[in-house]
Amino acid sequence: MSDTTCELCRTDGGQILYRNQHLRIVLVDDPQYPGFCRVIWNDHIREMTDLALTDRQMLMEAVWACETAIRTIIVPDKINLASLGNLTPHLHWHVIPRFTDDPTFPSPIWATAIRRGLRSTDTSLQGALTEAILVQLGKDSRLLPSQA
Amino acid sequence: MSDTTCELCRTDGGQILYRNQHLRIVLVDDPQYPGFCRVIWNDHIREMTDLALTDRQMLMEAVWACETAIRTIIVPDKINLASLGNLTPHLHWHVIPRFTDDPTFPSPIWATAIRRGLRSTDTSLQGALTEAILVQLGKDSRLLPSQA
Repeated sequence: MSDTTCELCRTDGGQILYRNQHLRIVLVDDPQYPGFCRVIWNDHIREMTDLALTDRQMLMEAVWACETAIRTIIVPDKINLASLGNLTPHLHWHVIPRFTDDPTFPSPIWATAIRRGLRSTDTSLQGALTEAILVQLGKDSRLLPSQA
Repeated sequence: MSDTTCELCRTDGGQILYRNQHLRIVLVDDPQYPGFCRVIWNDHIREMTDLALTDRQMLMEAVWACETAIRTIIVPDKINLASLGNLTPHLHWHVIPRFTDDPTFPSPIWATAIRRGLRSTDTSLQGALTEAILVQLGKDSRLLPSQA
């Protein structure tokens, strides 16, 4: 299922860290929030409850792998998870490392910034996160490794 | 596990729609977003990946039950899901019915409002949502019904 007007059908949506036939994990290009990842379902599906239960579980296992990788590599003060899709109604999860000195903390990142971010992009993040995600998927998931 | 300084350890956090020994589902008192629910883990746990995988699945099954109930009763234009916890680092999921004419759409509800909300509270929501959640938990979940 694909929608030619949908950005997540037309593009990867970020630097690919992992991909299988069902979903992909990308690194978001946002220097204010280094390590911000998205887990994107490949098909153009609107809501989690439009997916079969086993597919929902597979998607969430990728979110947990991503969260664990981010906690290992970035060591943030908090993880934020969100699936919104108001502008792009194509299932995707934001997995966001938060720091107490990031531009919007303790508000969600969509609130008005209250300070300048101090952190910059780290070009080694892509490789380190990819490796940590693969380790986690191999360890935790019943569904993903054979489909990688 | 409990933290005496934590609001979600000290209070229910809303009108209880469902409760078992692991988690509770509450209706949030926000007239701008009628039907806004939270699924709250009872123990004071910080991140999803601090929970065992089976507990994560149980919590997400309650989120899906909540999403289905909201879609059935409220029929929103979109569902927004989020687990943030920057101010209250005690696992809870926001399950938010969104309408294209709500105060912040298409932004997340934490953005600055761009219009006055037109919807008001409906006192019948609590009963209707409770019933729909119980139907859904009985239908979909392997874990919750016997613990209800």
